[in-house]
Amino acid sequence: MANKRILIVPGDGIGQEVTAVGKKVLDKIAAKFGHTFTYDEALIGHVAIEATGNPLPDESLEKMRKSDAVLFGAVGHPKYDNDPSAKVRPEQGLLKMRKELGLYANLRPIKLFDELLGASSIKPEILKGADILFFRELTGDIYFGEKGRKNNGDTAYDVAEYSRYEVERIARKAFEAARTRRKKLCSVDKANVIETSRLWREVIQKVAKDYPDVEVEHQFVDATAMLLIKDPRRFDVVVTANLFGDILTDEASQIAGSMGMLASASVGDGTGVYEPIHGSAHDITGKGVANPLASILSAALLLDISFGMKAESEAVISAVDKVLKAGFRTRDIADAQTLANKILGTDAIGEEVLK
Amino acid sequence: MANKRILIVPGDGIGQEVTAVGKKVLDKIAAKFGHTFTYDEALIGHVAIEATGNPLPDESLEKMRKSDAVLFGAVGHPKYDNDPSAKVRPEQGLLKMRKELGLYANLRPIKLFDELLGASSIKPEILKGADILFFRELTGDIYFGEKGRKNNGDTAYDVAEYSRYEVERIARKAFEAARTRRKKLCSVDKANVIETSRLWREVIQKVAKDYPDVEVEHQFVDATAMLLIKDPRRFDVVVTANLFGDILTDEASQIAGSMGMLASASVGDGTGVYEPIHGSAHDITGKGVANPLASILSAALLLDISFGMKAESEAVISAVDKVLKAGFRTRDIADAQTLANKILGTDAIGEEVLK
Ligand SMILES: CC(C)[C@H](C(=O)O)[C@@H](O)C(=O)O
Ligand SMILES: CC(C)[C@H](C(=O)O)[C@@H](O)C(=O)O
Repeated sequence: MANKRILIVPGDGIGQEVTAVGKKVLDKIAAKFGHTFTYDEALIGHVAIEATGNPLPDESLEKMRKSDAVLFGAVGHPKYDNDPSAKVRPEQGLLKMRKELGLYANLRPIKLFDELLGASSIKPEILKGADILFFRELTGDIYFGEKGRKNNGDTAYDVAEYSRYEVERIARKAFEAARTRRKKLCSVDKANVIETSRLWREVIQKVAKDYPDVEVEHQFVDATAMLLIKDPRRFDVVVTANLFGDILTDEASQIAGSMGMLASASVGDGTGVYEPIHGSAHDITGKGVANPLASILSAALLLDISFGMKAESEAVISAVDKVLKAGFRTRDIADAQTLANKILGTDAIGEEVLK
Repeated sequence: MANKRILIVPGDGIGQEVTAVGKKVLDKIAAKFGHTFTYDEALIGHVAIEATGNPLPDESLEKMRKSDAVLFGAVGHPKYDNDPSAKVRPEQGLLKMRKELGLYANLRPIKLFDELLGASSIKPEILKGADILFFRELTGDIYFGEKGRKNNGDTAYDVAEYSRYEVERIARKAFEAARTRRKKLCSVDKANVIETSRLWREVIQKVAKDYPDVEVEHQFVDATAMLLIKDPRRFDVVVTANLFGDILTDEASQIAGSMGMLASASVGDGTGVYEPIHGSAHDITGKGVANPLASILSAALLLDISFGMKAESEAVISAVDKVLKAGFRTRDIADAQTLANKILGTDAIGEEVLK
């Protein structure tokens, strides 16, 4: 019977719709298990720029620091995507949050619910049993290095940077996780070309000595992009840098049937942040068709990782499983076998999970 | 009836085996169409380091400059991959060749031979008809920027850089190609985070004005990694930076059934270089099982692009098609339907193509 403060940060686009459902699920869990969850809300992204001019107002950051966990939606808006010269952008809020809260480890579990075997573009016999846990480094790399223009704006540059310390702390988290799983770790880099990757590989090799029970392999990012589709079951824990992790986990969403199913946890020095890996999806915003299951599964990760509530977390996952077993789907995970009357909108599938 | 000098640069690992087959196919074409092709060989990569200490000896570079086209194998060796601190590396030879010959445009056509629909891990109904032409920028980005260490070696950095000029010249090549195809161009970047991508997007938007008949879309690299697998048919021409192109084209090899099927052309200011997109594959080197079809198809690209020999190029492609139609396969593209006696080694399938 715990008291916890949860901050809801919906952000932009479908972030609003899906976190609303995630929150309802947290509420239900509190009632069922006798916890008291109190909630607050904060702004980030485009909605924060519109309201305050700042993609991450100080007030939002303060609220995050004071919370026990953050349930996050998404940020982004097409307006900025079409205007590469915009100085203030929604994504700056997200990146600043990650940096300020010290969220250096982004966990992205890729696991297919058996019921969704048919929803993926990959063959079921290739997918069945695939279960990958990505550790994406989240506060370094080309995301946070110096960037700018020179030669009167005619040349642009971005600096990628990693220190041993930064690589080592994420490596240890990944090795620890591998120990609790199938004891296999794949470190992904581009050490045949870039220096940050060579440092990355050196550190992984060094840390590996402390985990002799974990089998380590090193793969280049290009080969990994291929292997993930060719043979996803060969992977257990994957650890990689910020940019490679961004690309590979979006790709790997196809292993789970749809991006709309994938949750992530960002943890490190302070408050943990839990969010779907999908974006703000302005093309379907407000239509009530967004898949809220990733936000619900983010709530499950929140309960498990930030609150240590294993039973509560499993109750959420098994509710999602039951809804899928009953044949309910959102549009993105429906397939030819789905009955038309079982294709539900955001709130309706949320209600099914609550039941 | 042309006289042409072709340089064979096998490089490392299976590069030796597959270029030998590619050369035989070129020979056969010369005989059949009455051309005179004269050949020379040059060293690059690990074999060049072993022989001369230099991954791209001046003599090799001179020979490349003097040739009408280069048929290339692969470079790389596990020895260096396991030693991130090696100062001299095979890949330096490849990168220097690209830079010195001004090979700024790397064309990677991804097209599935109908007979291989079953060989991919992706569902046939998703793949059927997919036909993508990648333009990967090849002489800029994080590959060629300043890189090194600071803080007593504890911090590594790599600088990514692009100038307007570099983006514009590859963009124009991609737009021109789109005009001869389905008139769709997708430019891939990460403009929501990095500055080189913002410059990239600005330049694409500007160049697009000169091609009003081509429909342009901008996608983020993470979304593209997902969409390539979810719905490969939505793409026609894709243009992107060096690093993103490296990752996305390896991934896209799964659309073509196997990496062993994919050829590429690197062109720009001087001699064109034609090579499989697969690597040196030391795990299967010397076993005679490598798929030579990518090298054969590279020879087809060479005939078409560097020599303007359309009929000759098509003769090669249709020979490959016939061999596949007859049911012959190398191990990597065999599937459950392949008869055991039709699984051939490198030379044997090469002989079938020659017939
Ligand atoms: C919105 C964007 C800046 C972000 C990233 O690249 O990290 C997103 O793609 C993600 O993966 O969380
Ligand atoms: C070997 C390596 C340096 C090279 C690259 O990254 O460009 C390879 O992966 C390729 O795609 O040609």
